[in-house]
Amino acid sequence: MYRPHAWVVNIGNELLIGRITNTNATVIARELMLRGVIVKRIVVVGDYLDDIATSVREAVGYADIVVTTGGLGPTDDDITMEAVAAAINAPLVLNKAALEMVEAFYRKRGLQLTRERLKMAYLPLGAEPVPNPVGAAPGAYINYSGSHIVVLPGVPSEMEAMLKIALNRLAHILPELCVAEEGITIEGVPESSLAPLLRKASKLCSDCYIKSHPKGHEVDNPIIDVKVMASAPDCDTARSKVLTVLGYLKKLIQGGDSD
Amino acid sequence: MYRPHAWVVNIGNELLIGRITNTNATVIARELMLRGVIVKRIVVVGDYLDDIATSVREAVGYADIVVTTGGLGPTDDDITMEAVAAAINAPLVLNKAALEMVEAFYRKRGLQLTRERLKMAYLPLGAEPVPNPVGAAPGAYINYSGSHIVVLPGVPSEMEAMLKIALNRLAHILPELCVAEEGITIEGVPESSLAPLLRKASKLCSDCYIKSHPKGHEVDNPIIDVKVMASAPDCDTARSKVLTVLGYLKKLIQGGDSD
Repeated sequence: MYRPHAWVVNIGNELLIGRITNTNATVIARELMLRGVIVKRIVVVGDYLDDIATSVREAVGYADIVVTTGGLGPTDDDITMEAVAAAINAPLVLNKAALEMVEAFYRKRGLQLTRERLKMAYLPLGAEPVPNPVGAAPGAYINYSGSHIVVLPGVPSEMEAMLKIALNRLAHILPELCVAEEGITIEGVPESSLAPLLRKASKLCSDCYIKSHPKGHEVDNPIIDVKVMASAPDCDTARSKVLTVLGYLKKLIQGGDSD
Repeated sequence: MYRPHAWVVNIGNELLIGRITNTNATVIARELMLRGVIVKRIVVVGDYLDDIATSVREAVGYADIVVTTGGLGPTDDDITMEAVAAAINAPLVLNKAALEMVEAFYRKRGLQLTRERLKMAYLPLGAEPVPNPVGAAPGAYINYSGSHIVVLPGVPSEMEAMLKIALNRLAHILPELCVAEEGITIEGVPESSLAPLLRKASKLCSDCYIKSHPKGHEVDNPIIDVKVMASAPDCDTARSKVLTVLGYLKKLIQGGDSD
């Protein structure tokens, strides 16, 4: 089954100076993964036109789905729509549907459209606005050169609400896939001793993803979370693959394996 | 004053499936920023040789300093050293100093070197090991084609301890610079109304970095953190630049500005 590949592009100087942690990437990666999409790369760039346009252009060149966050607000450093337009060689235009959304947002609150507010209704030519149920700035959905570009704001509450809307919009390209994941915590075995057992267990399921996460100390107090993930068209099959691997791994650790 | 540019490359499938949040990037970005380094890009890739090697090669092509995290452990999916070696066209070799570090770590705990443990002593030819005061796997420092590559583990406690050691190693290329930052919180002014005032205040200091962070709701309950950052060879000058901009901004917000 074909699984779409995605790149995530997070935009904002605050991420590059370490003022905030990129939780948006975590949320997007998890939501995409649970829908059968393989996230191949996350890129963080600052609020610079060239840097954003370059990263979006690179992403479009590699990924079926590109999700950007940040840079949609009313301030001058919010230039993502302009940069995305540059990346896809489209002009930035006043989008009628986006204008209605922005106008409705401010009218409801008895406020006029200023230059800064109007700015949020400009999208690359050909884009569809993604409605913002939480804030003022609409996002954008763009189908360009075989890639599906989703442009979302950086404020997490807005981003999360709009990601759901955007993923519904993309439902037609998402695989019908159930992803299952289970884990066990192993104490008292150094990761370097566990490694050959993981290698052995992984041979039971060629398309399972097995990963050990050391939580304690390699030798003095080893605590290791082992996670196994598998996908299949139906959830029972996916879950069964995971449990088979975990069961065999437990046997290996207890030394109950005779081969 | 020349300020080195950095790229951060974080390696690990767990980041791309949204299981963990990339706090390593935040810590590295902040530490580099406070030392006058400009972080231009953060890239997250999975545990795949080609993806890691490609991202390191791209980073070396753009940045003076490249910091990688993740993929240094004893398991088979820890392939960062191999990928970095491929990226810089160097062979992976058993490094004598790294071997001593790994041997000492396990000997102290009464354990022998296994294949998995020995693996952690292989570094690209020409690399210097970065000692790991917390865990088993050494990092690496590599000077290649004008870039300074620092290879660190993904476990945050190990990464943080080794980042400090690596930055001391890089002291000779870091600028003598003091970075100052102050912020104010503004309530009751929509970000779209604040934007023109920020634009005006920013004209007072061409090399200051001013950024508004909306915390509340654009209209119904606006709360905005405004942060101003500036750097100068001495801390007094840096701080004075910041305070000048913030003072003027406060005047503008209170309407006390007559021009």
